[in-house]
Amino acid sequence: MKVYVIGIGLIGGSMVLDIKGRYPDATILGIDNNEKHLQEAIDLGVIDEAGSFEDLQKADFVIVSVPVDVALTVLPKVLDAVGDKTIVFEVGSTKKPICDVVANHPKRRNFIATHPIAGTEFSGPSAAIRGLFQGKTNIICEVEKTAFKLQEKALNLFTSIGMRIRYMDPVSHDKHIAYVSHLSHISSFMLGKTVMVKEKDEQDIFDMAGSGFESTVRLAKSSPAMWTPIFKQNKEYVLETLEGYIANLTQFRDLLADDNYNAIFEEMESVNKIREILNGITIKK
Amino acid sequence: MKVYVIGIGLIGGSMVLDIKGRYPDATILGIDNNEKHLQEAIDLGVIDEAGSFEDLQKADFVIVSVPVDVALTVLPKVLDAVGDKTIVFEVGSTKKPICDVVANHPKRRNFIATHPIAGTEFSGPSAAIRGLFQGKTNIICEVEKTAFKLQEKALNLFTSIGMRIRYMDPVSHDKHIAYVSHLSHISSFMLGKTVMVKEKDEQDIFDMAGSGFESTVRLAKSSPAMWTPIFKQNKEYVLETLEGYIANLTQFRDLLADDNYNAIFEEMESVNKIREILNGITIKK
Repeated sequence: MKVYVIGIGLIGGSMVLDIKGRYPDATILGIDNNEKHLQEAIDLGVIDEAGSFEDLQKADFVIVSVPVDVALTVLPKVLDAVGDKTIVFEVGSTKKPICDVVANHPKRRNFIATHPIAGTEFSGPSAAIRGLFQGKTNIICEVEKTAFKLQEKALNLFTSIGMRIRYMDPVSHDKHIAYVSHLSHISSFMLGKTVMVKEKDEQDIFDMAGSGFESTVRLAKSSPAMWTPIFKQNKEYVLETLEGYIANLTQFRDLLADDNYNAIFEEMESVNKIREILNGITIKK
Repeated sequence: MKVYVIGIGLIGGSMVLDIKGRYPDATILGIDNNEKHLQEAIDLGVIDEAGSFEDLQKADFVIVSVPVDVALTVLPKVLDAVGDKTIVFEVGSTKKPICDVVANHPKRRNFIATHPIAGTEFSGPSAAIRGLFQGKTNIICEVEKTAFKLQEKALNLFTSIGMRIRYMDPVSHDKHIAYVSHLSHISSFMLGKTVMVKEKDEQDIFDMAGSGFESTVRLAKSSPAMWTPIFKQNKEYVLETLEGYIANLTQFRDLLADDNYNAIFEEMESVNKIREILNGITIKK
């Protein structure tokens, strides 16, 4: 079995680590524009060797795990190069633009659109970790556009590394993921900014920061190269979530300015229901 | 050694668990308006027995760990009741109103104002855990107003359970803690609200939520009874942080609406510096 990973970072790297763990005979070949990352991935044992686009003809699986703007140009080239039995999948955080760019490709049926909901705030080959996908959700879009036998091949691979499968259309995916993922990243980045700008001359102040602060700003460590194109491609829904968030914060601000503490209490109490929802997420981990 | 804890929840409960671990001969007495919590604390072994205000005369330590609005009325009564050698401390998240309410109390020198920066999103006696304060910061305000011998007694206790001590005036404490703690709670609560309101009819959507979402909304599980009076007492600084946060989010929204992706990239890159700050926090844990 030959598995190619294009873009060897957190997601692609972790995925091939698990595939190799599950299929020890698989050969893992890596392609990356960044020569340093390629060498690092070999040194860390994330991939077996460097591959090239010319070899993709012989690939069983091709994982495209590059920033979503790069995916728009790389993906059609990958499909141009692959063989009839190759299944290609992309793992980015937007699905509509990705599905659109390959919609009329002659090898569309060799492609399956996925979004494994897993990750950390780190990036690059050294961020690759084993077991990242265990119990996590993989959202698959437009499954009916993938050749039946290749669907089966891909699903077997995903479930073999512990993923649960959910099907969704790309527009619904992009809309909802804006709420449960993209907005969290903006809230973290801007929280980090608010505190850093205010406290820039007083580094000692961070001695006062505890685990609560850390938890809410953790995502502010995320890669701008990965996230800028996500916000660009999902602009419409990200703006919608962000405006909703700003409106809620502004309303909270007004309640506080007006000393309406009963309403503040009720607001918080009603959001407390999120405990059950978060328990669900914790179980999935 | 007799240690009284008034309000047996996450902070007070965890503190007496560690004190008992460090001083096995200590008797831990609990006082709580909530009879169920009192019994639960005994059953869980968090306290040895129930105490009463009349006994405080004989206390070595009194920990006041109640919501900060309750502290304003309880603290003077506690000081009225304690003996000359008793040291009383309060552990809430605001310091100026607390210091003010006891400023002219005849037993002011029996009081030390503290804020142990530690906690989880849970509350009540069952939330009490061992080792919560290990390596954490305890901010002490107006230390000079506490009797020298009692300062020493309190500091020995705090360091014996692993805390680092920092001194700060109450106004600076309240101002900075608004940025590194209070704002994080509002950002979490409003993020939770934004997603729940939007997705209320689509519980399946939370299948799409990953560890990033969980991390940013974790604090939305926090107790409204504890947090409403904190926001009330620290209204001025909380409003300042919240307005700064809303302004930063609005600016980000405008950059996105204007397709200014270079600026968005730069914003995120500049906030990435928070990595080093967060590393500092992680080490403290």
